Amino acid sequence: MHGRHLSSVLVRVGSTQLLIDCGEATQFQLSASRYKPGKLSTILISHLHGDHWYGLPGLLASLSLAGRTRRLQIVGPDELEGVLRRIPGLKEDELAYPIDFISTNSSDSLNLKKGIRISWAALDHGVPCVGYRIEEPGGEGNLDVDKARSFGVVDFQDYQRLKDGQSVENKLGQEISPSEVISPGKPGRVFAYVSDTRPCENGIMLGRNAQLLMHEATFMEDMRSRAEATGHSTALDAARVAKQARAARLLLTHFSARYEDAEIVALEAQTVFPNTSAAVELAPEAVEELAERI
Amino acid sequence: MHGRHLSSVLVRVGSTQLLIDCGEATQFQLSASRYKPGKLSTILISHLHGDHWYGLPGLLASLSLAGRTRRLQIVGPDELEGVLRRIPGLKEDELAYPIDFISTNSSDSLNLKKGIRISWAALDHGVPCVGYRIEEPGGEGNLDVDKARSFGVVDFQDYQRLKDGQSVENKLGQEISPSEVISPGKPGRVFAYVSDTRPCENGIMLGRNAQLLMHEATFMEDMRSRAEATGHSTALDAARVAKQARAARLLLTHFSARYEDAEIVALEAQTVFPNTSAAVELAPEAVEELAERI
Repeated sequence: MHGRHLSSVLVRVGSTQLLIDCGEATQFQLSASRYKPGKLSTILISHLHGDHWYGLPGLLASLSLAGRTRRLQIVGPDELEGVLRRIPGLKEDELAYPIDFISTNSSDSLNLKKGIRISWAALDHGVPCVGYRIEEPGGEGNLDVDKARSFGVVDFQDYQRLKDGQSVENKLGQEISPSEVISPGKPGRVFAYVSDTRPCENGIMLGRNAQLLMHEATFMEDMRSRAEATGHSTALDAARVAKQARAARLLLTHFSARYEDAEIVALEAQTVFPNTSAAVELAPEAVEELAERI
Repeated sequence: MHGRHLSSVLVRVGSTQLLIDCGEATQFQLSASRYKPGKLSTILISHLHGDHWYGLPGLLASLSLAGRTRRLQIVGPDELEGVLRRIPGLKEDELAYPIDFISTNSSDSLNLKKGIRISWAALDHGVPCVGYRIEEPGGEGNLDVDKARSFGVVDFQDYQRLKDGQSVENKLGQEISPSEVISPGKPGRVFAYVSDTRPCENGIMLGRNAQLLMHEATFMEDMRSRAEATGHSTALDAARVAKQARAARLLLTHFSARYEDAEIVALEAQTVFPNTSAAVELAPEAVEELAERI
C-alpha cells in the first residue's frame, strides 16, 4: 500500500461533482478532503474488481444516514445493480434516496444537466471494464456587433436570432448566417479516466485532445510481461496512449505496491510524454483542471 | 468519525488470532498494527449492519491476493454466507482458500483447537445480532506427590492414572480419587464482546466472570431515549451489565460520533463500575488480556 489508498477520483465540473470508482475507505478519504460526499450527483464505476468498488456500500449507506433524499446516478456494468441491491443495508427500502442505475453494457453515454457529457468505451482488462470521458459544455461564441452592422444587420431582434443560431436577412435582402458574425465558441475541456487496462485503441479515443488524461500505469517497463498477463499497462504504454491521443497532460495512477515512490513510474513515462505526473492522494489536480469554468 | 474507524477487534489467544467484526477499512488498520492478517484463523461477525462487516469483502480478497490457501472460518448470521458469495471477487472459484461458514442461527458454540471455546448468544438490537464469549482452556491441576504418598499411593503409573482423571487403589485397597490429590486447575480467562445491543440478560451471561468485557456504549445517559429507540446502550447500561456479570474489567466501544472524546463516556460508566476504560484504536489492551498464556 505504501500509504496509498485504493482507486477513486472526484471530478468537479462547475457545481457538479462526480466520483469515478470507489475503492475501500473512499468515504473516509472524501471526509478528509474539502469535498462533501452529499454533493455527489453521479458515481461512475469502471469494473467490478474489489479495489474499484468495495468502498461503494459504505459510501451509499453513509449518504443515507447523513439524510440524503436526492436521487443518485450510478453508472457501471450491468451486474452492479443486482450486486449492490443484494447487500444488506442497500436494498431499496433501506436507503433513504432513490438510485438510477445506468448500465455501461446497454448505453454508451449520458448527458447531465448543464451540458456535461459522459461517454464510455470498453477497455482491455480481461473482465468487463470501461474507461470514461467527461466533457464540459463548450463556451458560447460572441456576436461581433460591429461586423454585423457592416453586413447591414442593425435590428436588436436580429442579433438575438443570430445568437440563437438562425440566419437573418439584412436591409438588402441578403441572408447573413450566424457563422459570419459569431466567433466559434471555445470548446469544452475534457477529462478522461482510463483504468484498468492494457494499452488499447479505446483508451486513445477516450483521451483524444483531453486536457487531462488519467491513465493507469500499474507497472514499469521491466514488468512488461506481467502487465500484459494481468491486463495492465506500463508507464511507457500510458505515455504512448497520451501521445497518440494528443492529450495535453497525463496523470498516472493505479501503481503496483512494489513501487514505493510513484515518481519513478512518472519519470519513465516522461521519456515519451514529458507532461506526465503521478497522481497524489487528495491532491486537487484532477479536479481543478475542470473546475470553475462553467 | 472524529478519527475513529468502524468496529473491529483482534483477539489473540496464544498463537490463535481471531477477528470480531470487520467494519470498512479494517484491513488497512490491521496493516497498521503489528498483527498479520494472514494469521487469522476465525472471523466472528455480530450482525449485518454495514459498520460491522463492510470491510470483510476487502479483507477476504486481500488474503487471497496475499497467497492464503489455508481454510478460514467465518462465524455469523445465516444470511452472511449467501451475501458474501454473491459479491464479485468472493465466489468459491475466485478465492484461493476455502471458507467454512458457521451459522450463529443454527449453533451456539465452537471449539477451536488448543482448547479455545467460542460461544455466542442473541443480543437485543432489533436485527439478528449475537455477542461472543471467548474462553481460554483452563490450566491443568498439579498432582501433590507428597500428599499422594501420605495416602499410600507410591506407584508412578498410579500418578499418571490420577492425572488422567482416574481413581486408583492404595496399598490398603482404599480408593483414592484425583480430586483428593490434584489441585483444581486455574480456570481459563474469558473475553466477551457485547455489541450492538440494548442492555440485556444475554449480555450479562456472556460477560459472566470475564477478565475483560467489551460492551458497547453508543450513548451517554442524556441520550437514554435515543439509545432505547435505536437498540443501543448508554455508558451506565454497560456499567450495570459489567457489575451484574462480575466482570473484572469493562472496555467501552462503539461511541456515537457526537462524542469527540470517548473518555467522558467512560467517566460516566466509572460511577457504577470503576474499572472501566474507553477502547482506543490500535491499542493492544483487548488483545494482551488474553495473550501469551497458553
